[in-house]
Amino acid sequence: MLAPAASATGRITLVGAGPGSADLLTFRAADRLRHADAVYYDRLVDPAVLALANPRATCIFAGKEVGAHAWPQERINRAICADALAGLHVVRLKSGDPGIFGRAAEEIAAARACGIPVEVVPGITAASAAAASLCAPLTERGRTERLTLATATCRPGETWGGLAGVLVPGTTMALYMAMHRLPQVQADLRALGLPEDHPVLIAAHAETPRACHLATTLGGLVADAARARIGNPAVIFIRHPHGAPAAHPAPSAACVPA
Amino acid sequence: MLAPAASATGRITLVGAGPGSADLLTFRAADRLRHADAVYYDRLVDPAVLALANPRATCIFAGKEVGAHAWPQERINRAICADALAGLHVVRLKSGDPGIFGRAAEEIAAARACGIPVEVVPGITAASAAAASLCAPLTERGRTERLTLATATCRPGETWGGLAGVLVPGTTMALYMAMHRLPQVQADLRALGLPEDHPVLIAAHAETPRACHLATTLGGLVADAARARIGNPAVIFIRHPHGAPAAHPAPSAACVPA
Repeated sequence: MLAPAASATGRITLVGAGPGSADLLTFRAADRLRHADAVYYDRLVDPAVLALANPRATCIFAGKEVGAHAWPQERINRAICADALAGLHVVRLKSGDPGIFGRAAEEIAAARACGIPVEVVPGITAASAAAASLCAPLTERGRTERLTLATATCRPGETWGGLAGVLVPGTTMALYMAMHRLPQVQADLRALGLPEDHPVLIAAHAETPRACHLATTLGGLVADAARARIGNPAVIFIRHPHGAPAAHPAPSAACVPA
Repeated sequence: MLAPAASATGRITLVGAGPGSADLLTFRAADRLRHADAVYYDRLVDPAVLALANPRATCIFAGKEVGAHAWPQERINRAICADALAGLHVVRLKSGDPGIFGRAAEEIAAARACGIPVEVVPGITAASAAAASLCAPLTERGRTERLTLATATCRPGETWGGLAGVLVPGTTMALYMAMHRLPQVQADLRALGLPEDHPVLIAAHAETPRACHLATTLGGLVADAARARIGNPAVIFIRHPHGAPAAHPAPSAACVPA
């Protein structure tokens, strides 16, 4: 995995690749890719993002996907540290934002244990991108003044805690990777006292050619999602505003493509 | 406010300028700025971001700052709609992500009421940027599997609800614009049963030349922040992990500048 352009001192940069489209990458992320000697990338990273990497860099598919790791996390940790210790600038390219559901803490800890300098370049997380593409802001003054990003994926053997005690009035929840938990989501929303016609919005594959969305209700959630055959990666948006529940802004009707 | 390069059909693009540094802008945001006829920008937007705008565009300082609006929101709504109805491509440039504490809902509603097409370009929100700059991920598997972004700013005459019932175990909270509410934050954290030595991390002016951070504790929060003279804009990070409270990863020691 040694690239020809190794720098004198190795280092690791965790780079957020954003949600999909290469034009939602930041300039800083593109700069780090251009100066990389080795790039370890995840399954959900767009090929157009990878194409921005230094042409002399070695690009390694680490294949990490929620619930199905081509490489166990420990193998990724070992590989990026070994390359950095050999003097390379290693870019660890993660979909979305490395700091949000990105297991960045484990890679930072591994690097620090080896004395390797680490930098993190933030990225656009899927909830921001999906909400933008639907013209459906994540907070709304006086209604939802709080945003909770949560995931329904947990460690092997653990039980997902669900929404009880988490989705409180005044909150928009963006629930990642929960399409396999819809019956529990539906049951939890009912237990919270939300009505059957409470709106639920699902955005799948935001900012990719497979992007689609579903505007449904608490009552229709499980059946409608099954009919639409929407799976992960997706973000489920549930607003629990102060006062009476209100409909989502109608998604995308007045949105224009780029 | 009419610019010479008006396009045939007017439209409004809400653009996230990111947290400060121009290199944390996305390519898409830069593209929309390059093609703008009029740019309405907020106080916290970096001049280097504004410099990316079409040189023929009229740039208007709308001066919106939390708690101190140079322009009332209604005036901004009227101005951007009037320009779009006159055929201009209006870019409404907001710091961070327009969908998060950006009052995007009000501007989208105003545009729709006039039949004006709207697009939203997401941006890096302050919590992502500050956490990245401190190498302190916002979620950590098995400890904090949930991120809540909240603001301590509320509408005139309203009382801030505080943290009770919101900061539950398993959550990292990123609290925006709360430096004027530290005594309440401290009291709420004590009421939650957190110990006096529970770590609290404050990042101010992330990604600007004035960036600074303070690693303190629940007990030292009010006094330490006063001594350090840290005001808004800042993000206060509070982790409430499952199990015993643990220290934040030591910020920035192993972080390297770009």
